[in-house]
Amino acid sequence: MSTIAFRPRSRSYQGWPGYRLLVRDPLRLDCGIDFGPFTIAFQTYGALNAEHSNAILICHALTGDQYAADPHPITGKPGWWQTLIGPGGVLDTERYFLICANVLGGCMGTTGPQDLNPATGEPWALSFPVITVRDMVRAQKRLIEHLGIDSLFCVIGGSMGGMQVLQWAASYPECVFSAVPIAAAARHSAQNIAFHEVGRQAIMADPDWCGGRYLTLGRKPARGLSVARMAAHITYLSEAALHRKFGRNLQDRHAVTYGFDADFQVESYLRHQGSTFVDRFDANSYLYITRAMDYFDLAAEHEGSLHQALSGTRSRFCVISFTSDWLFPTAESRQLVHALNAVAANVSFVEIATENGHDAFLLHEPELFETLRGFLAGCGEHRGLGR
Amino acid sequence: MSTIAFRPRSRSYQGWPGYRLLVRDPLRLDCGIDFGPFTIAFQTYGALNAEHSNAILICHALTGDQYAADPHPITGKPGWWQTLIGPGGVLDTERYFLICANVLGGCMGTTGPQDLNPATGEPWALSFPVITVRDMVRAQKRLIEHLGIDSLFCVIGGSMGGMQVLQWAASYPECVFSAVPIAAAARHSAQNIAFHEVGRQAIMADPDWCGGRYLTLGRKPARGLSVARMAAHITYLSEAALHRKFGRNLQDRHAVTYGFDADFQVESYLRHQGSTFVDRFDANSYLYITRAMDYFDLAAEHEGSLHQALSGTRSRFCVISFTSDWLFPTAESRQLVHALNAVAANVSFVEIATENGHDAFLLHEPELFETLRGFLAGCGEHRGLGR
Repeated sequence: MSTIAFRPRSRSYQGWPGYRLLVRDPLRLDCGIDFGPFTIAFQTYGALNAEHSNAILICHALTGDQYAADPHPITGKPGWWQTLIGPGGVLDTERYFLICANVLGGCMGTTGPQDLNPATGEPWALSFPVITVRDMVRAQKRLIEHLGIDSLFCVIGGSMGGMQVLQWAASYPECVFSAVPIAAAARHSAQNIAFHEVGRQAIMADPDWCGGRYLTLGRKPARGLSVARMAAHITYLSEAALHRKFGRNLQDRHAVTYGFDADFQVESYLRHQGSTFVDRFDANSYLYITRAMDYFDLAAEHEGSLHQALSGTRSRFCVISFTSDWLFPTAESRQLVHALNAVAANVSFVEIATENGHDAFLLHEPELFETLRGFLAGCGEHRGLGR
Repeated sequence: MSTIAFRPRSRSYQGWPGYRLLVRDPLRLDCGIDFGPFTIAFQTYGALNAEHSNAILICHALTGDQYAADPHPITGKPGWWQTLIGPGGVLDTERYFLICANVLGGCMGTTGPQDLNPATGEPWALSFPVITVRDMVRAQKRLIEHLGIDSLFCVIGGSMGGMQVLQWAASYPECVFSAVPIAAAARHSAQNIAFHEVGRQAIMADPDWCGGRYLTLGRKPARGLSVARMAAHITYLSEAALHRKFGRNLQDRHAVTYGFDADFQVESYLRHQGSTFVDRFDANSYLYITRAMDYFDLAAEHEGSLHQALSGTRSRFCVISFTSDWLFPTAESRQLVHALNAVAANVSFVEIATENGHDAFLLHEPELFETLRGFLAGCGEHRGLGR
């Protein structure tokens, strides 16, 4: 593994923990462009066994990154799957070799629109090619090859991470021993595209976005990105969770103020979500990654047939949804399961009862943990990893 | 009825059809301010009978106005309840005298933040007092008194209009013979407050908002208001309706463009909703009216007891909800019905099966029409209006 010195103008990755792989051979993207060289930033946990048979690829969601089980280098917060990962954990670092890479188009070290276009010496901004979930997975494939892994024991992820899991199973069926798409779908719905479009319009409406050239101009569309995050954040929670957490409780006051301050706790919470997000995320990356999700439609690559897309699969699937997830509702997972059944795939399907909405995949959900633990143990036995 | 010449700096109401009532006696608002004189802009349809017993007050929603059955003076589109109103219609102009007034804080002729503050000669902007749904209803009460109506045959409205209906029943029980709250709730939920806050932040993030002083400065926060409208509009539809209408259909193209144009029809539709809205609506009005909805909590006025709030009611209620409305779900209407039952009110409750989401109250919904027709006929008999 090679660590590459890479100095973008705007975001200093210097001092951030983790590996950088410079991929020299260009990648043929869905848009037709041959892209590269490019960098993949990734983390690993645990050790690869002698047979190279215990590797699990963890795929992150829209605003996630490779720091699944490390403190985030900007916020200092624990890794987003810290609760799952560790010695003896559900993703047991004493048994498995875990890999988590920042997606192509991301902003945590893997090449994205905030990085310098070598042809111009300026940040790519909107000249960065529009990438797809399949492109993200193509880049990950290069990483896996570099690490000497022919077949992943498991590919796992929630939300956009789950889309990548499905894409892996469809694109590289021989490389995926087991697959766990959580709170995901085989295609992005009209409502989800609509919410993404609101977020993009909020960013683009910010005069500090400057047609995407804000880095070159020393500006930052913080207000637009914050509004985008606020709108999206509502969709990650359930109505019931919002009601339970906040209801109509007031924020540090006994009565409404008859003004536009954050009278209600839920307003204060949302504003906080918006304002902290802009410290760690790049606005153009947000545009590119939401677009990749919108474009995701696994069946479309196979003339509209989802079971055709999955016909070559040999993976063992564990499809997981959450009752209160209205962004990727259970019905979407069920469609996926139907398609997997139609190709006689090995699939189990668990709908977990929770009030935590879409974000449940990031939270302490005992039933999720038990489901994953059991599924991985069973697959491990078949893989010769023991229980 | 007096028509008042009133010339705000920014929005010309000249030539707009309808009545203007100048209310000279100030109104004591919930925030404690005595507000006035102020203007109420309203429309009427049909004729008041000799007994003054056939008046129906129609209450409009957040972005509605008094033009319930006239072409909109800005957009030229038919009135928002045109399908219900007319000779022989559900709201039969041959039987009833219909009144629809623009709410206090609105932007279609009733005094709102875009009008001139007589004390300064400048538009009120954020010096306009924060108003509540109860304040809107207080203003309407003045109008009803002016029209010589002691008791309304019916108060009817959807969404925020339904909130006004409930406030009427609670504040002036002796004046409301029957009440029809549609797709409404006795209080605004945390999720709904959250969506409103996103809209307000989008407006306030627009540099052209200028701390609310955009009219004085000759500017307009069109981009922020457009984003607010886009986000809100998604909540008015159901996921099923979005899927049926748009799915993942592309807009005038055969393949995705790998860019940020509106590739999908749903994006194009949303952008259109946003951009046309800014032509007809004032951004500060949007802030004030969303705030009024957020503050709405009928029980809070009565120490948290909803049935206490409604204990004085003598009205016949018809509570209506829609199965696919996730903004004001049926559970909210059910809570209201429980409270009405607890005070032995005369209440019928209809949940209408539709895919049209919250916006169903504005659409051609045969079951809604039949329900209203039957309810009004029954009430009319009790009121001595005949069937």
